Amino acid sequence: MSIGNDVYSIVERTRKSVPIVHCISNYVTVSDCANVLLAVGASPIMADDIREMGDIVSVAQGLCLNIGTLNGRLVDSMLLAGETAKGQGKPIVLDPVGAGASRLRDETVGLLVSGLKPDIIRGNMSEIKAVHGSDCNTQGVDVSQDDIVSRDNLSDSVRFIDGLSRDLGATVVSSGAIDIVGDGVSVYSLFNGDVMLPRITGSGCMLSSIIGAYSCVADPLLACVAGLTVMGVAGENAASKVRSNGEGIGSFKMRLFDEIYSIEKEDILNKISIQKEL
Amino acid sequence: MSIGNDVYSIVERTRKSVPIVHCISNYVTVSDCANVLLAVGASPIMADDIREMGDIVSVAQGLCLNIGTLNGRLVDSMLLAGETAKGQGKPIVLDPVGAGASRLRDETVGLLVSGLKPDIIRGNMSEIKAVHGSDCNTQGVDVSQDDIVSRDNLSDSVRFIDGLSRDLGATVVSSGAIDIVGDGVSVYSLFNGDVMLPRITGSGCMLSSIIGAYSCVADPLLACVAGLTVMGVAGENAASKVRSNGEGIGSFKMRLFDEIYSIEKEDILNKISIQKEL
Amino acid sequence: MSIGNDVYSIVERTRKSVPIVHCISNYVTVSDCANVLLAVGASPIMADDIREMGDIVSVAQGLCLNIGTLNGRLVDSMLLAGETAKGQGKPIVLDPVGAGASRLRDETVGLLVSGLKPDIIRGNMSEIKAVHGSDCNTQGVDVSQDDIVSRDNLSDSVRFIDGLSRDLGATVVSSGAIDIVGDGVSVYSLFNGDVMLPRITGSGCMLSSIIGAYSCVADPLLACVAGLTVMGVAGENAASKVRSNGEGIGSFKMRLFDEIYSIEKEDILNKISIQKEL
Repeated sequence: MSIGNDVYSIVERTRKSVPIVHCISNYVTVSDCANVLLAVGASPIMADDIREMGDIVSVAQGLCLNIGTLNGRLVDSMLLAGETAKGQGKPIVLDPVGAGASRLRDETVGLLVSGLKPDIIRGNMSEIKAVHGSDCNTQGVDVSQDDIVSRDNLSDSVRFIDGLSRDLGATVVSSGAIDIVGDGVSVYSLFNGDVMLPRITGSGCMLSSIIGAYSCVADPLLACVAGLTVMGVAGENAASKVRSNGEGIGSFKMRLFDEIYSIEKEDILNKISIQKEL
Repeated sequence: MSIGNDVYSIVERTRKSVPIVHCISNYVTVSDCANVLLAVGASPIMADDIREMGDIVSVAQGLCLNIGTLNGRLVDSMLLAGETAKGQGKPIVLDPVGAGASRLRDETVGLLVSGLKPDIIRGNMSEIKAVHGSDCNTQGVDVSQDDIVSRDNLSDSVRFIDGLSRDLGATVVSSGAIDIVGDGVSVYSLFNGDVMLPRITGSGCMLSSIIGAYSCVADPLLACVAGLTVMGVAGENAASKVRSNGEGIGSFKMRLFDEIYSIEKEDILNKISIQKEL
Repeated sequence: MSIGNDVYSIVERTRKSVPIVHCISNYVTVSDCANVLLAVGASPIMADDIREMGDIVSVAQGLCLNIGTLNGRLVDSMLLAGETAKGQGKPIVLDPVGAGASRLRDETVGLLVSGLKPDIIRGNMSEIKAVHGSDCNTQGVDVSQDDIVSRDNLSDSVRFIDGLSRDLGATVVSSGAIDIVGDGVSVYSLFNGDVMLPRITGSGCMLSSIIGAYSCVADPLLACVAGLTVMGVAGENAASKVRSNGEGIGSFKMRLFDEIYSIEKEDILNKISIQKEL
């Protein structure tokens, strides 16, 4: 109950304060990220020319970096935007899309993590393992079967996230059927969501964007818990409507936005499924 | 009634003549712009390599320039495409997304406005003030609270748009809850629309695209009036369905396309809300 | 019946094996392509930096190249990715978007076709004529009226596709109201689909992506037949729901994803409309 209230308070503060979130993102899911930021009540600005990074970061309250379709030009802009945000005390979220799938992605993630020390890093478990530099099984942008967090490997996964968040001095989120988030002090596991979420592109990128908005009004750990809860509960609500209407994945995506946009306190308090692990 | 008939005539001529509209746009809303062009009956072509600007402009009937995610490569292409369009007497619409949010955007808008003398410039009031070089309050891509056109500041806003359109020799549109359009001779205010429109990304970019299509078959002022009316009335129709179905912002976006695609003469004649100001 | 069973077997094998499909695509329809790959059960990875082409192709089972918004950087990446895929025996699908609309597109298509010898080339008939180097009537990215395949010109069109597929040593697909596919040995015509399909952007790009997924689990000709059938039948199902609900083109796009995602054996066996021409 208590943490449900904390989550809803973040939802409400975001809707009231309309934080501007600057995203340097990929061209696949960027439109969904902008729409989800609007849906949670934030104001997105997508800009990536290095000549305007100083100005854009300065008008924004938070920064999201996403390497989904990285190239050299974008990485330079990410570094400058990140340094500017850091200097202004604004939160940075890093989404290491596809980490582990190429050396370029691993090197870029290394550069961004060591150079910027992002406040929050969110990926699926394969990507998070790649961030750690441990053997991961990434073969694309989806989590590898071998890396999926389950009830069986939950305590190992919790310890891994705890260790990584301490090593990096960051809040680390591994999202999936079971989400884990740790900030070096506490670790939580979360169980909301639906199997349809990974069947739309950008559900991870959208989650990182929501966390980016929430981190403008809350500390990193709670911002992550709120983002995971909103995405998870909205996903459950959307899937339930889709199933009772005999619809499919296109309708699910549309209804996911509906549910994120209109999520209410009741929903969150009744449905949040979270456990303190450490 | 009369202007409603003019609007519908433009809707119909566009559906019949299927103008090809060349867009150099941003990677956030470009897919929505392509879809909205198809929805109004036009044929979109998105191309930005400078080596094909001559050929692409030549097969198109109109050109839309949008600086949402600008970079140096795109601006060079915009300049060449614009000069080519100018030379061929084809209409140019400029959407100065986020003008005021960075010096780069302001300089780029200055370059495009002075270099190309676009026929039509459409933005929210913060962006339009930035085009003018006056103090605007832009902090992102959404209109600033202080710049919103209301009944209280309507006559000042009308005079501002009138002056700017004369200065630039262009038709200037400030869109929002109240839209204003002026071409240096007349100024109209329009009152259609819904609060959900600014809650989806790209509603402004889509409006500019529709205006781009309509300007292939009508003079700039009427093309803008038609675009504002179609977007506004379709927005009202979509929002009304969304509310009666208990849906949210994802459904609104989908239904907006439905309504634009199938808008009928009756709808326009019955719902258009427009006032001649000057 | 027999070919319907072959088609469904491909649908099922794709759902079970979840092939990773690497796309170098345009920024207009790329999100729809990623979503449609997920909808058919594949795992998309969009990556275009030349430094990671080797790694990404190596984790993928197939490669889709789409020149919708081409530029020099992308073409270099396409060439390297294509050579890598070729060396690893992985299927390459080329979508020559807008071929015929600019010399740059024609030259690029020439380079990709001669340099990579793609297994499959899919476009509308104007684009396919441009690939052949014959006089086409392309004026944009949509098929020209003069190039549309009809019952009247069907046998000429069949012979043209047959000849081109022999010349290029590739499976060639011209999609539209009537689709034609030939692999140098056989030619089929297919008649599924709906007039709403070309009214959403990316229906062609999505079809190429589906074919890219199916070509990971089947030979090129059958992969194309399966892709055309799934897109055509799903389009019919979606349009039928849209019409009975009084909806429009936004709903059609959403329902198209629904139908592709959940297409069943019955649907395919009952509705496939295909004819062996040669």
